Amino acid sequence: MSDSLEVGKKLVAFCKEGKFKDAINSLYSPKIVSVEPGSMPPMPAKMEGIEAIRGKTDWWEKNHEVHSLKVEGPWPHGDRFIVRFVMDVTAKAGPMAGKRMTMDETGLYTVKDGKVVHEEFFYHGG
Amino acid sequence: MSDSLEVGKKLVAFCKEGKFKDAINSLYSPKIVSVEPGSMPPMPAKMEGIEAIRGKTDWWEKNHEVHSLKVEGPWPHGDRFIVRFVMDVTAKAGPMAGKRMTMDETGLYTVKDGKVVHEEFFYHGG
Repeated sequence: MSDSLEVGKKLVAFCKEGKFKDAINSLYSPKIVSVEPGSMPPMPAKMEGIEAIRGKTDWWEKNHEVHSLKVEGPWPHGDRFIVRFVMDVTAKAGPMAGKRMTMDETGLYTVKDGKVVHEEFFYHGG
Repeated sequence: MSDSLEVGKKLVAFCKEGKFKDAINSLYSPKIVSVEPGSMPPMPAKMEGIEAIRGKTDWWEKNHEVHSLKVEGPWPHGDRFIVRFVMDVTAKAGPMAGKRMTMDETGLYTVKDGKVVHEEFFYHGG
């Protein structure tokens, strides 16, 4: 099994249980680069380094109540894989506070030396 | 709406109706590059030019009976978008002839000047 498929399967397993932090701690490179289609204030579109990504995850978890979560994939190609996330959430703060919404997005991950070094999220903002 | 989202929506609409050739004819650049995770003999993993991609589509359509087709997306990010395809097919020729199977894959597309210039497919071969 290729590195990317193996890492992808582990990432999907963690995310299905909502264990985003465990996925980061065990599968991400210290030099991870994470890119959203646009900025989500206060978060910039591009963030670098595992501490910044942990901070982003903390921020996301504090600001959203997750009602349900579906994670599909991984779909591998060489050193990359794609995962789909469908989340039914209610925002707790910010301009969307109190609004329940479905987030449907895909992530494109790149693996190097057995660790995720790059992640990019694909979705349509509105 | 960004070019990539607009092109992605048109591509999904064509593919939902099984009109893969129409998608190529109206949305693809003459210099399209198409990459599979591996070769599918007699097709190489990487093919270039719209005539080669039309030939690949002809080959695929001749060699598979499609029972049903689900197309999801597009998920955009900048000049790229992702689409998911789930196909229930029976192979008509080759080592899988007569075998009915579900193909579940994602495609990552790059748009330039309003046309698809690069497509890559992500799936796990077996």
